[in-house]
Amino acid sequence: MFLSTLLPVQQAIEIIQKSIKETDIEMIPLEDAYKRVVAMDIVSQLDSPPFSRSAMDGYAVQAKDTYGASAKNPKPLIMVDQIGAGSKSLVTVEEGMAVKIATGAPMPDGADAVVMEEYTREEDGIEVETSLTPGENVSYQGEDIRKGDVLMKKGKFLQPPDLAMLASGGHCKIPVYKRPSIAVLITGSELVMPRLLLKDAEVINSNHYTLKALVESSLAIPTLFHVDDDEGRVKEMFIDLLKNYDALITTGGTAISKGDVVVKVAEELGEVLIHGVAMRPGKPFAYAWINDKPVFMLSGYPVAAMVQYDIMVRKNLEMMQNLHKPLHIVRKIASRKIPSTLGRADYIRALVEDDIVTPLNIKGSTIIRSMVDSNSYIVIEENLEGVDKGGECEVILYEALRV
Amino acid sequence: MFLSTLLPVQQAIEIIQKSIKETDIEMIPLEDAYKRVVAMDIVSQLDSPPFSRSAMDGYAVQAKDTYGASAKNPKPLIMVDQIGAGSKSLVTVEEGMAVKIATGAPMPDGADAVVMEEYTREEDGIEVETSLTPGENVSYQGEDIRKGDVLMKKGKFLQPPDLAMLASGGHCKIPVYKRPSIAVLITGSELVMPRLLLKDAEVINSNHYTLKALVESSLAIPTLFHVDDDEGRVKEMFIDLLKNYDALITTGGTAISKGDVVVKVAEELGEVLIHGVAMRPGKPFAYAWINDKPVFMLSGYPVAAMVQYDIMVRKNLEMMQNLHKPLHIVRKIASRKIPSTLGRADYIRALVEDDIVTPLNIKGSTIIRSMVDSNSYIVIEENLEGVDKGGECEVILYEALRV
Repeated sequence: MFLSTLLPVQQAIEIIQKSIKETDIEMIPLEDAYKRVVAMDIVSQLDSPPFSRSAMDGYAVQAKDTYGASAKNPKPLIMVDQIGAGSKSLVTVEEGMAVKIATGAPMPDGADAVVMEEYTREEDGIEVETSLTPGENVSYQGEDIRKGDVLMKKGKFLQPPDLAMLASGGHCKIPVYKRPSIAVLITGSELVMPRLLLKDAEVINSNHYTLKALVESSLAIPTLFHVDDDEGRVKEMFIDLLKNYDALITTGGTAISKGDVVVKVAEELGEVLIHGVAMRPGKPFAYAWINDKPVFMLSGYPVAAMVQYDIMVRKNLEMMQNLHKPLHIVRKIASRKIPSTLGRADYIRALVEDDIVTPLNIKGSTIIRSMVDSNSYIVIEENLEGVDKGGECEVILYEALRV
Repeated sequence: MFLSTLLPVQQAIEIIQKSIKETDIEMIPLEDAYKRVVAMDIVSQLDSPPFSRSAMDGYAVQAKDTYGASAKNPKPLIMVDQIGAGSKSLVTVEEGMAVKIATGAPMPDGADAVVMEEYTREEDGIEVETSLTPGENVSYQGEDIRKGDVLMKKGKFLQPPDLAMLASGGHCKIPVYKRPSIAVLITGSELVMPRLLLKDAEVINSNHYTLKALVESSLAIPTLFHVDDDEGRVKEMFIDLLKNYDALITTGGTAISKGDVVVKVAEELGEVLIHGVAMRPGKPFAYAWINDKPVFMLSGYPVAAMVQYDIMVRKNLEMMQNLHKPLHIVRKIASRKIPSTLGRADYIRALVEDDIVTPLNIKGSTIIRSMVDSNSYIVIEENLEGVDKGGECEVILYEALRV
C-alpha cells in the first residue's frame, strides 16, 4: 500500500502490452469496413480507371486537329457519333472527326484528347475554339490503380476514401481483425440501476454506462454484467465470461490492503501480474492473465475507473484489433501551481483553453463532475514533484484518446 | 460555367445552413446515448453521493478521538460494528468507538471521519496511528450532484463521463435529437458493384462505399440506393426517398453546362438554390430544397464527391442533430509553391508532417489514391493566387472533420 510497493505506470503498461494478442481475422462486406483494420495486404484485381475515359463533357478528337484553334480562329470538325457514360463508340476517330462524349465515357479509338464543351460551338458540325495537347482531359486506364498493385497494407485503419480504393480494385469483401468482444463485469452488492428512490445504502451503477461507452470508444464490443460481492458468484462469472469473450474488464473489489473479492478470484483462477499501480487516481488497479485472456480489474469509483481505463486498458483493446495509434501528448502552460508526490504519476482532470491548462478543483475520485467539466488530463510523471505556475506540463486531450 | 457565374463557397455554405432544421426529439435508453446530443436541459432527481459515505476502507470514528495519534503514540478504540458497501450500521459511534467500514458504505451516525486501514492495527480493539481532521476520507451526500441541479444542458454532445453523471442523477432514459436518416442515391448507368471482370464501359460504384462511410462519420444513418441515368426513374426515386428520409444526397448528373438529369429532376420537384460553386475539385455541386427537405447533389467523381461532402454536406448533417463543432483550421508551412486561380477556392489533398504541409501531385478528381495517401486539405481561398514555398497556408486535417 505504501508507494514503494506499487508498480510504476510505465512498467505496468509494458507488462500488459507484452501479453496482448491480436484477435482472429474475419471476412466482412466492404460496406461495413469503415474504422476496421485490414488483416493482410490487399492486391488490386483491376485497373482503375478500367479503360481510358473522358474526364470532361465535350468532344473526343485528335489533338493535332486543334493546333492553333482559338475563339477568333475556330477549327471545324465533323461529329461522327455521340456516347454517354456506360457505352462505347464503335467509330474510330480520324483526322477532322469528333465524337461527342460524356464525362466518364470510354475514349473512342483514334482520339487522344477531349475538348470541353465550353470551348466548342455546335453548328452543322462543331467548331473548336481552343488548342489541345495530346492526353488533355483524358483519364488513362490504370492511372489511379494498376492490377496487381498493393491497394492497402495490412494494418491500415480504414477511412472513407480507402473503401473507394478497395472497391475500385474489385473487392466487395475484405479480411479484417475481429473487433474484440469485451465482457464488463460490474461488482458491488450496493449497486442498482438508475431510479428515483434509493433505499438505505443503495448506489446507482453509473459504471455500467461509462464502461459501455468507453469500450465502444475503443471500437470494441462491450457486453455488460453485474454481480454481488460474493466470491462464489464472482468466480462463476469469471469462468463463464472468460469462455465466451476475448477479454474481461471488472470494476470494484480491487483494494490492495486486503483480500478483496475480485482480485482474490483472479488469483485462484490464473496469474495476477499487477496489483496496485503508482498512479492517482487509480492506484487499486489489477491485471491478470486467465485462460489465455486478459483481465483488467478497475476500481469501483467512477472517476478512478475512467482514468484506469484511459491509461491501462484503452490502448490494449485497440492493439487487439492491430490498431496502433500513438498516445498524443501535448505541452501546455499551467495556469497555477500543481503539487504532486514524487514516486506517483498524477492524472489531473483539467481544462485546456488555447495554450493554457487549468487543473480543476477536485476533492476525490468520487466527483464525476470533474470528468464532465474537464477536457484533458494533466500528466505529472513519477519523477516530478509537481509543476509551477507558468511552467510547461504534459497534457492528454480526451479527444485525442478516441480512435 | 465560367468562374464569374459560380457561387463562392462561403455564400453556398450560408444558403445551405440557413435552410437546415433540427431533427425531432426521441427518448432513448441511457446506455445508447454515447455520441448523442441532449435535446433539453436535464435536472438531477437525486443527490450524489446519495448519502455521506466512506471514501476508504478503514474505520469510521470521531476525529477528535484521534488527535495527537501517531505510530509511536497510537490511540486505542473499541470496534462496535463492521459494515460493507450496501449496508448501513445501526450503531451510533460515540467517544472511543470505531465501526469497521468498507469504501462506499454509509457513514454511521456519530462518526465524522474515516481512518484508513493502513494507519491502524487490529488488536483487541483497534489502535489508530494517525491524527484525523473532521470530514477526512468522507464523501458527503450531494457533494458531486444535488437534487434539482441541471446535470446536462441542451446541446451537450455526450461523452462517457456524462453518462455516469446522468445515471447518478436517476435517469435511465434521456431525450436526444434523432440521428438524421439519409438516403444516398448513386446515379449512373455505367456503375456496377465490385467484381473481377468489367464489361465494356462498366465502372465500379465506389461512391456507394465512401458515401456510406462519410455519412456514418457524421453520425447520421445512411441508406444506399442506385439508379440509372433515366429521368423518369430518378424522379420516382426522388419522390419516394424524400417521403421516407430526412435528407437526400445524390452523386452524378450535376454537370453545369447542360441539363444533367439529377439537377433537372430537382428543378421540377422543388427549388434549386445552388448549382455550381467556385471550388476545385467539386465545382458541379448543387443544392435543392424539396418537400421541406434538403437535397445535396454531388459530383459522380469519387474525389470531387468526397471534397463536396466535407465542405458542403458534413456540417449540415451534424447541425440536423444540433451538433455544432467548429471547423478546425490550422496553419502550416508549404513545402513548395502552390499555384491557384483567383476567384476559386482550392481544396488540395496534402500531407501534413509536423509543421510542414506538402501538396500531393494530383492530376484530377479521378485519382482516389490522392485521398488515400493524404491526411489533410490545403485550403486556398478565392481571394488568393496560391501560396509561395515557405509561406503559411490554411489546412484542414481529415481527423479534425470527424465528430
